[in-house]
Amino acid sequence: MSHQSYNVDLAKCEANYTALSPLTFLERSAYIYPQRIALIHGARRQTWLQTYRRARRLAWALVARGIQRGDTVAVMLNNTPEMFECHFGVPVTGAVLNTLNTRLDPDTVAFMLNHGDARVLITDREYSHIVKPALEKIGRSIIVIDVDDPEYTGSGERLGEMDYEAFIGNASELFPWTMPDDEWNAISLNYTSGTTGNPKGVVYHHRGAYLNALSNIVSWGMPPASVYLWTLPMFHCNGWCFPWTMAANSGTNVCLRKVDAKLIFDAIREYKVTHYCGAPIVHAMLANAPEEWRKGINHKVSGLIAAAPPPAAVIEGMAKIGFDVTHVYGLTETYGPAAVCAKHPEWEQMSLADQVTKNGRQGVRYHAEEGISVLDPATMQPVAWDNDAMGEIMFRGNLVMKGYLNNPKATEEAFAGGWYHTGDLAVMQHDGYVKIKDRSKDVIISGGENISSIEVEDTLYKHPAVLAAAVVAAPDEKWGEVPCAFIELKEGSQTTEHEIMQFCRDNMARFKIPKQIIFGALPKTSTGKIQKFILRERAKSTTSFE
Amino acid sequence: MSHQSYNVDLAKCEANYTALSPLTFLERSAYIYPQRIALIHGARRQTWLQTYRRARRLAWALVARGIQRGDTVAVMLNNTPEMFECHFGVPVTGAVLNTLNTRLDPDTVAFMLNHGDARVLITDREYSHIVKPALEKIGRSIIVIDVDDPEYTGSGERLGEMDYEAFIGNASELFPWTMPDDEWNAISLNYTSGTTGNPKGVVYHHRGAYLNALSNIVSWGMPPASVYLWTLPMFHCNGWCFPWTMAANSGTNVCLRKVDAKLIFDAIREYKVTHYCGAPIVHAMLANAPEEWRKGINHKVSGLIAAAPPPAAVIEGMAKIGFDVTHVYGLTETYGPAAVCAKHPEWEQMSLADQVTKNGRQGVRYHAEEGISVLDPATMQPVAWDNDAMGEIMFRGNLVMKGYLNNPKATEEAFAGGWYHTGDLAVMQHDGYVKIKDRSKDVIISGGENISSIEVEDTLYKHPAVLAAAVVAAPDEKWGEVPCAFIELKEGSQTTEHEIMQFCRDNMARFKIPKQIIFGALPKTSTGKIQKFILRERAKSTTSFE
Repeated sequence: MSHQSYNVDLAKCEANYTALSPLTFLERSAYIYPQRIALIHGARRQTWLQTYRRARRLAWALVARGIQRGDTVAVMLNNTPEMFECHFGVPVTGAVLNTLNTRLDPDTVAFMLNHGDARVLITDREYSHIVKPALEKIGRSIIVIDVDDPEYTGSGERLGEMDYEAFIGNASELFPWTMPDDEWNAISLNYTSGTTGNPKGVVYHHRGAYLNALSNIVSWGMPPASVYLWTLPMFHCNGWCFPWTMAANSGTNVCLRKVDAKLIFDAIREYKVTHYCGAPIVHAMLANAPEEWRKGINHKVSGLIAAAPPPAAVIEGMAKIGFDVTHVYGLTETYGPAAVCAKHPEWEQMSLADQVTKNGRQGVRYHAEEGISVLDPATMQPVAWDNDAMGEIMFRGNLVMKGYLNNPKATEEAFAGGWYHTGDLAVMQHDGYVKIKDRSKDVIISGGENISSIEVEDTLYKHPAVLAAAVVAAPDEKWGEVPCAFIELKEGSQTTEHEIMQFCRDNMARFKIPKQIIFGALPKTSTGKIQKFILRERAKSTTSFE
Repeated sequence: MSHQSYNVDLAKCEANYTALSPLTFLERSAYIYPQRIALIHGARRQTWLQTYRRARRLAWALVARGIQRGDTVAVMLNNTPEMFECHFGVPVTGAVLNTLNTRLDPDTVAFMLNHGDARVLITDREYSHIVKPALEKIGRSIIVIDVDDPEYTGSGERLGEMDYEAFIGNASELFPWTMPDDEWNAISLNYTSGTTGNPKGVVYHHRGAYLNALSNIVSWGMPPASVYLWTLPMFHCNGWCFPWTMAANSGTNVCLRKVDAKLIFDAIREYKVTHYCGAPIVHAMLANAPEEWRKGINHKVSGLIAAAPPPAAVIEGMAKIGFDVTHVYGLTETYGPAAVCAKHPEWEQMSLADQVTKNGRQGVRYHAEEGISVLDPATMQPVAWDNDAMGEIMFRGNLVMKGYLNNPKATEEAFAGGWYHTGDLAVMQHDGYVKIKDRSKDVIISGGENISSIEVEDTLYKHPAVLAAAVVAAPDEKWGEVPCAFIELKEGSQTTEHEIMQFCRDNMARFKIPKQIIFGALPKTSTGKIQKFILRERAKSTTSFE
């Protein structure tokens, strides 16, 4: 027998090979649990079987209008049942789902519709003020379908040729539920909100979406039939792949058009929500909400926190209200979370402060990711596990995007040396857990010393009056750059610049102390990320050059 | 933009693609939980880091002896730490792990060693009486390594050139932990114990092993860091892929050289075992064990039951002792379980008898399997969901073997029509759950009527004195075939042929009642499967032609 026997007459065939695709999970839930509630939205209840049938109708309607494999279908939607359905009904046709951020301006939306060559736009009436001018700008006509959600009673007009319900209403529910012929085919397109230049279109494939959907379950330890609250926008990295995760989980999705602490606690109480995800700002809202809002919630609630390095005070606040929060880390380019701060039971014996330090790290690779590492980008060698040497966080493996659409230069740069370069700076701690220090562009270089803006922010968050803090570089004649702090106070709280300065002097090295403190609401993206580029501009114009 | 934009400049590269392999999970557990106990065996405790290092040493030692990609390494081992290590240390070299059933006779072992062209045999001293004559028969010399387990004090001699500990002792623990270049590469070889003809060598690949490892967790709902008791032999379908599942789970494996109800309960109590798998006979032993053996076990214990259609009485017995048993279904050709009788919470409100009926079915597809269906093998059309029309159970998808080694004819037959043919006959119930009726060869055709041997057995199991029952066809002049029942009684129980006959008359249709009852111990395979082919021979010779 030659060494090749194991490859002789043992090829792939229909019986033993299928392309991996998360679309398979919707069919499975509909088959096994047809009557179980898949979606709750206001008074609306939709079973898994209904959801599957509606997704098939959507697919049928799209194909009837000429949508083909490799076409782009864009959506401008909240966390509604329609948005969930689009995650299945669009890609099953071979088309690619492009979820647009609902907070974007018309110019950017127009850029994305054209860059992605969208053939269809499904849009919620709430966003007609953005979508209407965007459609005028694109210089071609596309199919526009409206979602007119009874749960939305605000302003906004219908723009399209018909309503979503009418669009799918006449379609057959027998669209063939076939998996892609190649698991490397694109499933979705997510534009990154870059701070400079045009947004880049991150392409996900079926294989990665399938693997991340399962990895969310296994890496988080999510039990079957969980009740998942949609606090994270589905337009953000496809909701970290959770539409597909929930289809695999055969659980229940509780929709939420709008993030609001009271609504969140009400939903958790009413529907016995067990799981949710969110940016730090969402968790901060919950941790700082009035205690009476939480009354009557006695079951275990587990949250994933990510999207930005979570301030320690927020993790601590969540622990205090009894929610079990797990920190994950990733980027649009990694299907959302691709690393998790995997917990150790020993940590539960530590002081709360130490637990928060342990749990607030970027951690280790997801099950389905091959690796996360901190490398010197010049040599591509890993830094020492000494909690000191800085390097860039890099990922490799099946949870890294296919690449950027129509942007080979950016793709090549991002994948240089066989790793995806995140642009985040970090150290490797003694236990091999990654601890982020900063975005490369957020490091403040003051008198030759590197100052981690995150470190300064972490300290500011510990002040009892601080709801949110952001520190950026301000130009300085003497030091080159100096830290400038922007602070948003908790409702009803008061403090002064002097008091904050004193707090800083008591809690950090002198050279790290912000030279200026500016109070006010912080500008945030729709996913709760603080928009530092805006603050950086402000810091420039307000610096006094003392 | 053309329809092909999503495939332009978006190819696989080192950053965004890795071959799927369950070997990745051992590295992950060793990285994140280096000090956690991976293996308990008698007084021995072995951490995940130690296990990873030992697997790397094993790989190094094999390669140092000339083992190359595509070579076969056979093992004749109990459920010991060495057996677990072989599931990683062998395939990481590119070689293929062939786990031999420890109850085989020398001729069969010799056949397998030669058919698989094994270059190395790692063998437990306990089996030297089988291995020694087998090695004499194969007519060539291979590398033989002994496992001399301190937990084994019985007879048997060392046969090899050195002991496993010496073999890996001098090897480096720095063997590079690289994934296969192709996920379709073979990872293991499992011979099926066919009742006629030569055994067939079922080849698994890395992709399927990876997907089943994750699917075991997701489809069963296994929480992270479970404590898993090795009641199922690892030589059987690679322990249903559970060595790889446990590496993904980062839990603890409790080894067991020998299946014994008292030892099992002791281990469950002492190590707080949460999960285990086993054939019906294992569960029957547990359900029928003295109550005092279970004393002190107050935590939740979850078991998977499969390997044969589980008698309803056994499932009921397990429910009575408070174990949470889930029924899975599969074959060697499907990596072990590839279907699960997925539970519905509504069932918990039913009577115990109804619950047992619901939970005792073959069920629905595993998450990572594309499909299980009941097809008419002539037309390849699905049978009606009427709980009546019989067809053959077929599987398709990523949890179907690569094929049979060096047996293209058998592979082709098995995959005819794009489905894997199980040879099991079943109906589809009204809820789309598969209910097995019989192996094709086990159906009894009596006076033109089909009698399901399983149905008759299920009734016999309900008799309080019956520990195990098997019904086969006996030739009959008048009817062609008639059912003949073999019964093994519970310890201390008594009954008579007359009493059993009366019980049958009270509980089944007349034409299904066995014409003969034979008492005594039933012949079983090492995995607890009752060997019906032996009983069939006996039935022939004892039939009275009344």
